Amino acid sequence: MTIAPARLPLMANAIRALSMDAVEAANSGHPGMPMGMADVATVLFTRHLKFDPSAPHWADRDRFVLSAGHGSMLIYSLLYLTGYAAPTIDDIRNFRQLGSPCAGHPENFLLDGVECTTGPLGQGVAMAVGMAMAERHLNSVFGDDLVDHRTWVIAGDGCLMEGINHEAIGLAGHLGLGHLNVLWDDNRITIDGATDLSTSEDIKARYVATGWHVTECDGHDFADIERALQEAKADPRPSLVACRTVIGKGAPGKQGTSATHGSPLGAAEVAAARETLGWTAEPFVIPSDILADWHMAGEPGRRAHGTWAGRLEASDHKAEFERRMAGDLPQGFSLDAHIAGLIEAPQKIATRKASEIALAAINPLLPDTIGGSADLTGSNNTLAGGIGTFSRNDYAGRYVYYGIREFGMATAMNGMALHGGVIPYGGTFLVFTDYARGAIRLSALQQARVIYVMTHDSIGLGEDGPTHQPVEHLASLRAMPNLLVMRPADAVETAECWEIALRQPDRPTVLALTRQNLPQLRLAAGENLSAKGGYRIKPADAARKVVILATGSEVSLAMECAAQLETAGVGVDVVSMVCSELFDEQPPAYRADLIPADALIVSIEAASTFGWQRYTGTHGLNIGLDSFGASAPASDLFAHFGLTVDAIVPQIQNKLNS
Amino acid sequence: MTIAPARLPLMANAIRALSMDAVEAANSGHPGMPMGMADVATVLFTRHLKFDPSAPHWADRDRFVLSAGHGSMLIYSLLYLTGYAAPTIDDIRNFRQLGSPCAGHPENFLLDGVECTTGPLGQGVAMAVGMAMAERHLNSVFGDDLVDHRTWVIAGDGCLMEGINHEAIGLAGHLGLGHLNVLWDDNRITIDGATDLSTSEDIKARYVATGWHVTECDGHDFADIERALQEAKADPRPSLVACRTVIGKGAPGKQGTSATHGSPLGAAEVAAARETLGWTAEPFVIPSDILADWHMAGEPGRRAHGTWAGRLEASDHKAEFERRMAGDLPQGFSLDAHIAGLIEAPQKIATRKASEIALAAINPLLPDTIGGSADLTGSNNTLAGGIGTFSRNDYAGRYVYYGIREFGMATAMNGMALHGGVIPYGGTFLVFTDYARGAIRLSALQQARVIYVMTHDSIGLGEDGPTHQPVEHLASLRAMPNLLVMRPADAVETAECWEIALRQPDRPTVLALTRQNLPQLRLAAGENLSAKGGYRIKPADAARKVVILATGSEVSLAMECAAQLETAGVGVDVVSMVCSELFDEQPPAYRADLIPADALIVSIEAASTFGWQRYTGTHGLNIGLDSFGASAPASDLFAHFGLTVDAIVPQIQNKLNS
Repeated sequence: MTIAPARLPLMANAIRALSMDAVEAANSGHPGMPMGMADVATVLFTRHLKFDPSAPHWADRDRFVLSAGHGSMLIYSLLYLTGYAAPTIDDIRNFRQLGSPCAGHPENFLLDGVECTTGPLGQGVAMAVGMAMAERHLNSVFGDDLVDHRTWVIAGDGCLMEGINHEAIGLAGHLGLGHLNVLWDDNRITIDGATDLSTSEDIKARYVATGWHVTECDGHDFADIERALQEAKADPRPSLVACRTVIGKGAPGKQGTSATHGSPLGAAEVAAARETLGWTAEPFVIPSDILADWHMAGEPGRRAHGTWAGRLEASDHKAEFERRMAGDLPQGFSLDAHIAGLIEAPQKIATRKASEIALAAINPLLPDTIGGSADLTGSNNTLAGGIGTFSRNDYAGRYVYYGIREFGMATAMNGMALHGGVIPYGGTFLVFTDYARGAIRLSALQQARVIYVMTHDSIGLGEDGPTHQPVEHLASLRAMPNLLVMRPADAVETAECWEIALRQPDRPTVLALTRQNLPQLRLAAGENLSAKGGYRIKPADAARKVVILATGSEVSLAMECAAQLETAGVGVDVVSMVCSELFDEQPPAYRADLIPADALIVSIEAASTFGWQRYTGTHGLNIGLDSFGASAPASDLFAHFGLTVDAIVPQIQNKLNS
Repeated sequence: MTIAPARLPLMANAIRALSMDAVEAANSGHPGMPMGMADVATVLFTRHLKFDPSAPHWADRDRFVLSAGHGSMLIYSLLYLTGYAAPTIDDIRNFRQLGSPCAGHPENFLLDGVECTTGPLGQGVAMAVGMAMAERHLNSVFGDDLVDHRTWVIAGDGCLMEGINHEAIGLAGHLGLGHLNVLWDDNRITIDGATDLSTSEDIKARYVATGWHVTECDGHDFADIERALQEAKADPRPSLVACRTVIGKGAPGKQGTSATHGSPLGAAEVAAARETLGWTAEPFVIPSDILADWHMAGEPGRRAHGTWAGRLEASDHKAEFERRMAGDLPQGFSLDAHIAGLIEAPQKIATRKASEIALAAINPLLPDTIGGSADLTGSNNTLAGGIGTFSRNDYAGRYVYYGIREFGMATAMNGMALHGGVIPYGGTFLVFTDYARGAIRLSALQQARVIYVMTHDSIGLGEDGPTHQPVEHLASLRAMPNLLVMRPADAVETAECWEIALRQPDRPTVLALTRQNLPQLRLAAGENLSAKGGYRIKPADAARKVVILATGSEVSLAMECAAQLETAGVGVDVVSMVCSELFDEQPPAYRADLIPADALIVSIEAASTFGWQRYTGTHGLNIGLDSFGASAPASDLFAHFGLTVDAIVPQIQNKLNS
């Protein structure tokens, strides 16, 4: 039993009605996009999208990404109409109200069926690229029987105008992601007015230049939409379908104008739209025949899910596939052997190198990882453990040459993590988190296990100078909710941090790693001390008067300062504050023991001191770098900026005597 | 007297020799690009670029931007060879050493002739777009006699692969910036290897699709380079010249490979290169005949400068042109009258609206401003004062519809500010500083007067939800060196902040502004109190036990809390901490008076509390939001997150009693 073509316009109008009603009730929201794309979405959801409303986590479902997240009522309407358990009609009535899962923009952590959080423009398309990468990779591992689905995107002009679009489609075109289909809401309107106010680009030609298949359709002609989607699916390249639409279609006085973009239509215009659409039902009421049609839309997916489940049961891969999709690590996974090796043969190496040898241990044990770098493979030390290159010719590879696309890498990693079945990590210089920051925030907000391997983490990188030397980056990342920022002090801590990061199913991690060599400070076997975020790496010999908190490369500097102070009879604890977010989660007694009230608390970090006062108080001492760096060999820079034993010890002594 | 074509290869080899020698001496750097682009640069500097080495600040010089900043030895070589006062040959010998102006990447604040700081890839091209915009605007104001120059860029594959490239060239193509010429070092090599490892894009087709003229040349054939540059200049569109080059050209064993990109060639390869190039001079020695040729390269520019100076002397615009290029504000410029109006008729408005009415006062008084928004004009309230639209049809307009290009807007503003003669400001939502952060950092590092109008500055924006609600952004921007972050509390402070921002010739400002209405707290005329960064807006009535520090929308909340505490006999000072960077610059006595040791210090800000402990200490109280926000009406959110009088006053009382 299929849905008759004649029913499609009525079904599309149900989206329009719900969207108008919800925005009107909230007195806030964006009716223009859902009304403009209602027809295209109806064709997609009734004829193409593979989904099972009763099993929103089905691994082999198609992924649907509403990149133009402001049009959130489109996806809320679709989830409700097709019969997902949520949102309910009451949830939709409470659109944009506290506690409703129907938030202003779609949030993956509030509703099943929302594959990713969108709203920050351009990132939806870019995360979809990552989803499509994960799909092809898992297909190469588990075969067509278990993994063979598409990623569909609805995107607006804003998504295509953002810089991230260039990075994302460049990657998709290069990787030949034929299961990725982007439906562009080509309505020629932005918030400020007509698109020709700000752009003269031939978007279709740009996509063709980037290796995409491009077609177009009249976004209000159901047969033409169907033809275009068929064409998109048939082409082996990723596809862009330019859907020529009228924004706010159905609102007779405002359609085709930016007035419909981000404001309620108003009672009079809603009434006129109902008249135009022939929609007579009460607000928030969908006539039962139309709802019944919509409920049928999920039928093909339900059936496909059933046969897929049979294949899974019969598959030799069942246990491993389920483990990976659940996001669990393999039973017995551990870096203990690797760490034991380090204890046995201590390494004086950069923590970026320590990360590489950790990865050489991890990658063979953990087939879930997909690594990469934004064109700094040899500097980030991200390629290890014999993983091959992920390419259009070999999706089984696990190393991605992302090119000079930091933001594109980060968004793709978000998409991969959200798709599930893989654990992405990727590298660039710490300073270039600035380029990827919008995506790092979405990793945190979306609770995605993404591991950022950020090397060259201070002036210790030396000659490249201030453009390449992070100063404010550690502080600025620590201020972000739900993100672990780890700065290990040696090879052992680096391995511990990798293990912690891998074991965070619902938050991302930034590993801040040095370019320069560091002595190994941890020389005894034992528990993962980094897991507490901060720990006493050296207790005071003499009566304790000072506690030095340090991270990364400055822990060994702190140890040297402490040694000199001890010779002068000043007892000094050194705490390696490898991850302050984890430290802050420890019980108060643990924290008070490490940062006692009766000692001078000193922080040492070759970075902005901003934020350290939460531990040192206003009477402590903050050693750091509150200006931009400079270009010189690293040791000259540490001396120049006063990050040496000779510069620091007198400051501590003065403070004690003051 | 012109330079004979037969001399060009020798001149180009001088660049190669200096580049090899400097990188070798530093044992660090990037020889590949300067050697690969030496021939193209030689044609540009001898035949096309309009420059006067004796007057590097000449207003009508062509701007030259080395977007591929890692190839810094190219520009250092050129500046030395053509006879700029700096760098000297000793500076070049000290390439990448402490104190040398020849830093790892070119820094505009270290060397004249370096128009902007480059290294963070893609931003050089994007700043050049801003320079070309400023040039056309000033041309429209002052005419061809005073302003008629080009902006030339050398860019690498990385610059073109970054997302910012899409935004920048989209803007340039749309605006028809025919005086912008980008010379692309098409060497098909990136750090990780051949470009086809990560990209399959037809770059030339993409540029054509974006409204550019495109041509190509053999980057080692001087006649062909000359032809291509002529063609580029003749076309009315911005031009991309694809220069097919061999990276590291001249190093026989390594040229054409990524081995030349970012490492010294090594003594043996340098010796082989000298052999190949027929270069017999000692390291760092340029034969006098070649140096003499290079010194001639600036002659046409020197002559042009002379005739231009005559035109300036004869011009009615002389005083105004010189004022603007010096970056001075007009004599008597002041917002006093505007502020007096606010005192007379207090306004309960959002600070974004207060910014709009400030701009309505500023823009008519200050012809230097060029405003804009990344497609949020009506939300950022950035269009005011009757300034027209800047477009290819009217470069005299002073309002730029940047489109959905936050990063592109910020980089263009950097370029405009560095060009001089204009003061750029531009708007988006505060949360989207994440998209532009790489450029904000370069505003700060480059000491550029750029004003970021960042509205919707907290959960007070309401229904759009967590993707649109800044939390960590204020802290993360405050951690950045040389950036003023201002969060005014009412219409008067907003005007004061605008005046302060305009009077910062060498640093950028972020104005964080509310969506929601705020009461006017400042009701008496007087000095610009915001200029001290923080000031006591309400002294304690009862004996002072508490000092509340607050910013922006939370100052009025702090006032309400204080009022309630005073009724309970608790004396409370309220400090409006409108700009902590300026506050930190005040004398210690001023700061100690505002934040005394004998009171409970409380911070209230609807944002991450990270960093506030530098004022409150560990025994104070930090009221804020250390998680992501939510989607709901603003007042519901303030209540939900405990940012109300009822939630805060008991916490202060408990703290006092504890």
